[in-house]
Amino acid sequence: MTPETDKRGRPVLFVLSAASGTGKTTVAREVEARVPGLFYSVSATTRARRPWEKDGVDYHFVTREVFRAWLEHGNLLEWAEVYGEYYGTPRKPVMEALKDGRDVLLDLDVVGKRKLQALFPGQVVSIFLFPPSLEVLRERLITRGVESGKLEIRIQNALREIEGAQEYDYWIVNDQLEEAVEALASIVRAERQRSYRFPRIPLQRSAEVGA
Amino acid sequence: MTPETDKRGRPVLFVLSAASGTGKTTVAREVEARVPGLFYSVSATTRARRPWEKDGVDYHFVTREVFRAWLEHGNLLEWAEVYGEYYGTPRKPVMEALKDGRDVLLDLDVVGKRKLQALFPGQVVSIFLFPPSLEVLRERLITRGVESGKLEIRIQNALREIEGAQEYDYWIVNDQLEEAVEALASIVRAERQRSYRFPRIPLQRSAEVGA
Repeated sequence: MTPETDKRGRPVLFVLSAASGTGKTTVAREVEARVPGLFYSVSATTRARRPWEKDGVDYHFVTREVFRAWLEHGNLLEWAEVYGEYYGTPRKPVMEALKDGRDVLLDLDVVGKRKLQALFPGQVVSIFLFPPSLEVLRERLITRGVESGKLEIRIQNALREIEGAQEYDYWIVNDQLEEAVEALASIVRAERQRSYRFPRIPLQRSAEVGA
Repeated sequence: MTPETDKRGRPVLFVLSAASGTGKTTVAREVEARVPGLFYSVSATTRARRPWEKDGVDYHFVTREVFRAWLEHGNLLEWAEVYGEYYGTPRKPVMEALKDGRDVLLDLDVVGKRKLQALFPGQVVSIFLFPPSLEVLRERLITRGVESGKLEIRIQNALREIEGAQEYDYWIVNDQLEEAVEALASIVRAERQRSYRFPRIPLQRSAEVGA
């Protein structure tokens, strides 16, 4: 236990969920850059990289063989198959960050969030990010090159994901990027100050020392 | 209900408690200046003003007659008698701020906090501010002109107040002022995003509009 844990609680796992097209990765990366001691966990996937995505930034893009080998070796904290493609969270970086006393920010869907809560009871804080409106979400999906024939399916998927928001601790509307970033950064900073995360009342130890 | 409540929850009452000499008022005032939509409630007291205190800033300094008249007219949200002096929270400014959709920050002891929780169930968030050590607290009390004969009594009082910290939602150690201010500001911003404070899921209404 580092001396720092006397001033803030033990590490927290922050799960950020949002419908595709909400701007989740942009918000998460900006918060990671702004808040010291926060590690952003990049998921792995077997699905094809989209033109605007970067390997190791948006996802670790891996083959099905690599993903299956990781599964066999227990290298994934949680994983899921969605429309025939695999998605998962590499275990090692997350465990190392927690061991170092850093908080972890993970980009997961509602099922992934539930798995994490089962693995780390009492240590998971969940945040759901909303687009400001369905109209804006539709525009963002068009900008990302989603074909008009698939647009309504994507919107319906988004509405289904948003149903899951009921079970999240915090809600943020991504209307102005800067406000959404500051809201998420504040949630990270605030949760570090939760009294039940501290190993003891801060001053009691020094009271003993002073006695 | 303002449109704003679709993006953040309903107003919150933040109670900040600390032993005398911890720097509570400095932190509270700086947070009020930094966070829009936050109103700092100045308590009223019958005790004598200390040389470094400002009327209307640290307290509203009033006579016993005025205080008793306020009591009779129900003008105080909560009040207490401590060592023969009265302390209380003027009701009107707090109720008006809440009505305007502003959050309120109150400087109360643990008994005042409990009264507020009874008056506003589910709307109170409590924060306890610690001095970095008893040695620092002792120095600060000396700087404030506390006589050496009374110093140990004040330290014992501080330790008794700190026992009450157990029942607070958040703990902040006031080691570096800027860090303590940022921690409290973050708690205010984060609590506004709590999902259970929102009247509804943000996007559902616009889903209906778009349908």
